[in-house]
Amino acid sequence: MQLVNAHKCFGGTLQFFRHDSDTLGCAMGFSLFLPEQAESGRVPILWWLSGLTCTEENFTVKSGAYGEAARFGLAIIAPDTSPRGEDVADDAAYDLGQGAGFYVDATEPPWDAHFSMYSYISQELQALVAESFPIDPARQGISGHSMGGHGALVLGLRNPSLYKSISAFSPIVAPSACPWGRKAFSAYLGEARSGWSQYDACEILRSGGTRVNYPEILVDQGASDQFLEEQLMPARLLNAAKQCGQALRLRMQPGYDHSYFFVSTFIGDHLAHHASLLQ
Amino acid sequence: MQLVNAHKCFGGTLQFFRHDSDTLGCAMGFSLFLPEQAESGRVPILWWLSGLTCTEENFTVKSGAYGEAARFGLAIIAPDTSPRGEDVADDAAYDLGQGAGFYVDATEPPWDAHFSMYSYISQELQALVAESFPIDPARQGISGHSMGGHGALVLGLRNPSLYKSISAFSPIVAPSACPWGRKAFSAYLGEARSGWSQYDACEILRSGGTRVNYPEILVDQGASDQFLEEQLMPARLLNAAKQCGQALRLRMQPGYDHSYFFVSTFIGDHLAHHASLLQ
Repeated sequence: MQLVNAHKCFGGTLQFFRHDSDTLGCAMGFSLFLPEQAESGRVPILWWLSGLTCTEENFTVKSGAYGEAARFGLAIIAPDTSPRGEDVADDAAYDLGQGAGFYVDATEPPWDAHFSMYSYISQELQALVAESFPIDPARQGISGHSMGGHGALVLGLRNPSLYKSISAFSPIVAPSACPWGRKAFSAYLGEARSGWSQYDACEILRSGGTRVNYPEILVDQGASDQFLEEQLMPARLLNAAKQCGQALRLRMQPGYDHSYFFVSTFIGDHLAHHASLLQ
Repeated sequence: MQLVNAHKCFGGTLQFFRHDSDTLGCAMGFSLFLPEQAESGRVPILWWLSGLTCTEENFTVKSGAYGEAARFGLAIIAPDTSPRGEDVADDAAYDLGQGAGFYVDATEPPWDAHFSMYSYISQELQALVAESFPIDPARQGISGHSMGGHGALVLGLRNPSLYKSISAFSPIVAPSACPWGRKAFSAYLGEARSGWSQYDACEILRSGGTRVNYPEILVDQGASDQFLEEQLMPARLLNAAKQCGQALRLRMQPGYDHSYFFVSTFIGDHLAHHASLLQ
């Protein structure tokens, strides 16, 4: 693992790392904010999964999150959103291939050679971070935006022993039922749809198969988000949660769009949500 | 004036505009954050001048400033850093030409055709903003980073009736005496140096010619800034201020570098500084 860059920030340190991923078969980057409190003990950590076209950098410059993270003594890790490189399959569209990993383990060629973001995040990077940094593996939360909100819900709901708190911004809650998700899942998982439901937050909730009594899940959604009706459909998540008795707080925020200006406005609330559950 | 983009942000609105500048002879962009308070009355405004290579966008995504600005009811305008376009003179280096206007009115060809950022900021854009938006022209402050910190000090000190509060991050305090400044001033203002002192904050303070009893000026400087010794030299500003009796608070911040991660850490303090002087 190689330290690429480090910046002091709100009394803590924001670092950019690269490492060779066995799971993905390529080099990967991630950013990690460690608050000052990490100098004297293990701290809780929030996993932030980014959306389409993002890398490990977007959250670091756009979220405005580190002031509140420093106050809460919360580490934040932001991984890249897909495998990368000349040897890695890609597509000219922004919503497939590099920058669009969708947090699944692909089963279809050519994607199955590298696109295993679900295992990379929940296993390989998980282990690397736990052994390398002063974070507390028993106090981890997960959040994300758009495609990363989908990732946070899916990884969170399926790994309750790993992630103790969940939130999301503008998540793709039903990828099996929206154009972004259907396109990606068809390519990565095949047309058969039999493997889709394990990566669909609404399906996971409805199946009840992995249900635990999660603390309340917090979801913020801009009411003026251009992708609201066609891609995001948050009411489906609310209904699925109701059906299975999972507490979920969906906040429709009037006037807000899909951008990081929306995320930055409410990230403080999300950090408070995670901090209260992880302390 | 054309509205390019608008985002709701912390209850207010962040807007990006373009307009044709007579002073610069080209189209220019700027960003403007208006807090919710601007819906019911005129609000104070902070001018943010950005550094080398920046546009009107950098501050909007990297500063994390709008949460505190919303709390203080403070508008923030961030102009571009130079004239732009195919017809505008340029240089391959990052520290000369487009993206490096240095907030001066150039007198030397080819730069004198378009590079008049001093007049653009303090006159043309000033007038446009005052007539177009619900801001209070009697309550304006100025700040900036690096080259923009230099611009904030120079414009602020020379226009005390316009800007009622001044602060800066990592400013180029003595451009006549550092490589960045000497290169830019030689090109824009000529080798003679006779026209340089009016754009050099240390010289302006020492001359006492424009001295007014400014309230305390706040300057933050990262002690691990890679440009500290060769380009920034904040002790010169401290000495010049002492000589002329201008109150100046220089805070050397241990461990911090030249990046916006440093700016974002202390921008809240600067907004509080301006808000208290502008209320």
